[in-house]
Amino acid sequence: MQKEFYYISLFNSKFIGDDGAYIDGMVYSADGFCEDIHFKKEWMSLKQIARKAMLVNISDVIAMNAKPQFALITIKIPKNFTNKMFHQIQEGLAKTAQEYGIEIIGGDTVAGKKLDIAITLVSATKKPIFRKPLRQGYLLAHTGTLGSVKKDLRKLLRGGKVSKKSKFIAPQLRKDFMHRANRFIQACMDISDGLFDDLEKMTRLNKVGIKFLRKIPKRVGCSGEEYELLFAFDPKDYKAIVRRAKQARTKITIFGRVTRRSYRNICKPNHF
Amino acid sequence: MQKEFYYISLFNSKFIGDDGAYIDGMVYSADGFCEDIHFKKEWMSLKQIARKAMLVNISDVIAMNAKPQFALITIKIPKNFTNKMFHQIQEGLAKTAQEYGIEIIGGDTVAGKKLDIAITLVSATKKPIFRKPLRQGYLLAHTGTLGSVKKDLRKLLRGGKVSKKSKFIAPQLRKDFMHRANRFIQACMDISDGLFDDLEKMTRLNKVGIKFLRKIPKRVGCSGEEYELLFAFDPKDYKAIVRRAKQARTKITIFGRVTRRSYRNICKPNHF
Repeated sequence: MQKEFYYISLFNSKFIGDDGAYIDGMVYSADGFCEDIHFKKEWMSLKQIARKAMLVNISDVIAMNAKPQFALITIKIPKNFTNKMFHQIQEGLAKTAQEYGIEIIGGDTVAGKKLDIAITLVSATKKPIFRKPLRQGYLLAHTGTLGSVKKDLRKLLRGGKVSKKSKFIAPQLRKDFMHRANRFIQACMDISDGLFDDLEKMTRLNKVGIKFLRKIPKRVGCSGEEYELLFAFDPKDYKAIVRRAKQARTKITIFGRVTRRSYRNICKPNHF
Repeated sequence: MQKEFYYISLFNSKFIGDDGAYIDGMVYSADGFCEDIHFKKEWMSLKQIARKAMLVNISDVIAMNAKPQFALITIKIPKNFTNKMFHQIQEGLAKTAQEYGIEIIGGDTVAGKKLDIAITLVSATKKPIFRKPLRQGYLLAHTGTLGSVKKDLRKLLRGGKVSKKSKFIAPQLRKDFMHRANRFIQACMDISDGLFDDLEKMTRLNKVGIKFLRKIPKRVGCSGEEYELLFAFDPKDYKAIVRRAKQARTKITIFGRVTRRSYRNICKPNHF
């Protein structure tokens, strides 16, 4: 976590710091999905792995209020994979791409020991949403229910099983909510490292703090890979946001208010 | 090699098949550069590794007569890497990017066992050059001198050392030649899998064959990762091509003519 943060900051580009880089109406984003870092092969089918690799990338794009158009996919495939196994991965990638209107336009495959999927998405947006501004007084909210991913991951790490509907297996993206509510969302990011961790990134970037309006237990705030949206809005848009969430049938939880102080999260890094 | 070919062909997109995907004036391309597949850490410094990762990607872009603008870089970094080692990789990437006018706009870092660098480049071109058309009668040529990379790779695999000027360590890209000669180049690709192997890809795509005008030994034709340009031109442009090559101080070898027959290469796959 710390190392990643340090590393990314070494490249001095004004485009780095959001879920994707916004340039002239386009958003460019890239995320790797790697065996034994983000998943273990015993936990998911190859199709589920491929689908999740795609979804975690699309999640960034939705958080920026963009529409993904093209994907480039670099895959490292274990040498012992059969053609059938190839097909399963391809199907997972292609179907998920199709579902979101994405065309896979290229990439690279290499043979290796682990299964790694690095995806770059090229997306378009007329109104990009960034991790800032977070102005004092803005309300902070997140979509969905947080915590189940951490619980499920713990189960998997202990050798247990989880439902194929688990958000760890199949993230639930909030495209519909973003589509309806984007006019009222001032800042947004997806929750990939956990609410508290991502809140720290967002508040640090904006040099602000948070007053929590409700108590959030650690098992909720430290649950990573939720791929829910963390967003901020002006209190005057409270009713509009709540109405749009209802229309999209998306649960939202308004949990905090932006203050002057700074905020520091209390979770341990969550990658296994 | 075969598997890679099979795999890429599973995605049905009209954009796949060239060194990059051309869409509305832009070229999107992605290539992975992976430890123990494309390099071993003992062979090169981290800076050289980072530089080559960038260059093999830029090579695709030059072959399409495009100018790289943005890079997204997903890196898997061994857990035991120090900050100093990070810095060396960052420096190699950043310097090479700068040299070619590329801005690094994003990416992802994950901790793993091997050092893997997956790069996506976003490039612009007013006149893209593809792997086709290869019309009957066109002359086929390549830049530079082929063969040294295979020799150097063999040396390295035997535990020997090679000069830091070896094209295996530091590919020589042909940007200047392409810049001057692009008007006369009908089709082009970079030589990454070896002249014969890449010729097979190019001729198969165009459903044509080759008449060799000179004998090319296997040690030359089967040398991969040369990152020279393989290109075709109309015989009427012979003089123009030769003149442009001289201006760019780039050696070119005209070795074949496009025919109706098909062509099959005789090399073994070259990855170690």
